[in-house]
Amino acid sequence: MELFYTRETDGRYCRLDPEESAHCVKVLRHRSGDDIHVIDGEGTLLRCRLTLDSPKGVEAEVLERFPDWGGHPYRLTVACCPTKNNDRFEWFIEKATEIGVDTIAPLIGEHSERKVYKTDRAGRIALSAAKQSLKARIPSITEPVPVRDFLLQPREGLRLIACCFEEGQPRVSIQEALRGYDGTEVTVLIGPEGDFSPAEVRLALANGYRPIHLGPSRLRTETAAVTATTAVYLHYLD
Amino acid sequence: MELFYTRETDGRYCRLDPEESAHCVKVLRHRSGDDIHVIDGEGTLLRCRLTLDSPKGVEAEVLERFPDWGGHPYRLTVACCPTKNNDRFEWFIEKATEIGVDTIAPLIGEHSERKVYKTDRAGRIALSAAKQSLKARIPSITEPVPVRDFLLQPREGLRLIACCFEEGQPRVSIQEALRGYDGTEVTVLIGPEGDFSPAEVRLALANGYRPIHLGPSRLRTETAAVTATTAVYLHYLD
Repeated sequence: MELFYTRETDGRYCRLDPEESAHCVKVLRHRSGDDIHVIDGEGTLLRCRLTLDSPKGVEAEVLERFPDWGGHPYRLTVACCPTKNNDRFEWFIEKATEIGVDTIAPLIGEHSERKVYKTDRAGRIALSAAKQSLKARIPSITEPVPVRDFLLQPREGLRLIACCFEEGQPRVSIQEALRGYDGTEVTVLIGPEGDFSPAEVRLALANGYRPIHLGPSRLRTETAAVTATTAVYLHYLD
Repeated sequence: MELFYTRETDGRYCRLDPEESAHCVKVLRHRSGDDIHVIDGEGTLLRCRLTLDSPKGVEAEVLERFPDWGGHPYRLTVACCPTKNNDRFEWFIEKATEIGVDTIAPLIGEHSERKVYKTDRAGRIALSAAKQSLKARIPSITEPVPVRDFLLQPREGLRLIACCFEEGQPRVSIQEALRGYDGTEVTVLIGPEGDFSPAEVRLALANGYRPIHLGPSRLRTETAAVTATTAVYLHYLD
């Protein structure tokens, strides 16, 4: 099943941008009258009939709408400091999208080696992973903000922070933290390769973030982020 | 902490191969008298003192032994058909090693697009991931066998098979399958991109494999394999 993506729909018709149109008409050779499947990136799948097979701007009539298509029963934000090696962070974006995440928030920590992060490539990776894994919602990738600013944003639900805390800091496993939670809104913070600073950790605890660990294995930043995503995904399976 | 690897130890002394020796002496500039940490790949960390700083064959005296160092409280075999794109399978090997796996068994299924798989690169990736994630045991990568041969091998413990079964085939989530299990030996089979053949599935069920799913998301082969590894890892966290 091939999915196209558009933001341009009035509910009765939709229009693909030049890139999607070229793929639809030139590569897949769809012609007027063909049925195609289009996602709106917000969670709805549209079954459509092609009415204009122009490679510059495909138009199609919406025949049927499937809201919350390929969705999951939770709302997860993973806030994570991008890794020095960009491939590793992009791999996290791809895998988290496949598994099920709603928002990826790149953070700049006091100890981050990477202080700048451009989100345009990240958005394209999330789009491609959402199409590949048949999801109608594309996770939103927010603009990078300092850890402190993120922590001061008002947030609902379960808030968890995973990092290598100082000796003596009480913390529970992510499993244990999720076990007692019956809401659906979860935020997980994953520190940079150089870990969060003590001031960042204090601010997180003061803002209701619960300190967690991800078990005995020493995971790379991006592996920790995918492991946390998987833990939340599995928590909502029966 | 930098780890070296050797298979050559009599318990009192150990010797590094030329590649590890060159890294130790030329790159990290260790000299006789320095303390180094060596893993035996079987689960034991050796704290050693360098007695010969030759770049062709470092020798060191074993001062202390730490058995089951960086280990995990289960024995997991993930049997998985290598993906067409080799990078994706190698990524699975790296991530599963970081998280915690004991044996990776590449399988050739009737529907596998890849019918040949060489394990030498895979072994190097597992070694490097084990060192990076501070584990003394390197997962063993077995030689590829047909799915049917693997299924006929005698195996202890919980045996699970994840695939897209025919409609009506009863199956439980991996969470549910693990929940009732208090042993430590787990085997998970992950099918190829073209899925297992009906004959392979029948043989698995006849040999005590329990059919499972990995939730509603449509995961790529390598993502499914890492998700299954993570589910087992998380199951043994408190």
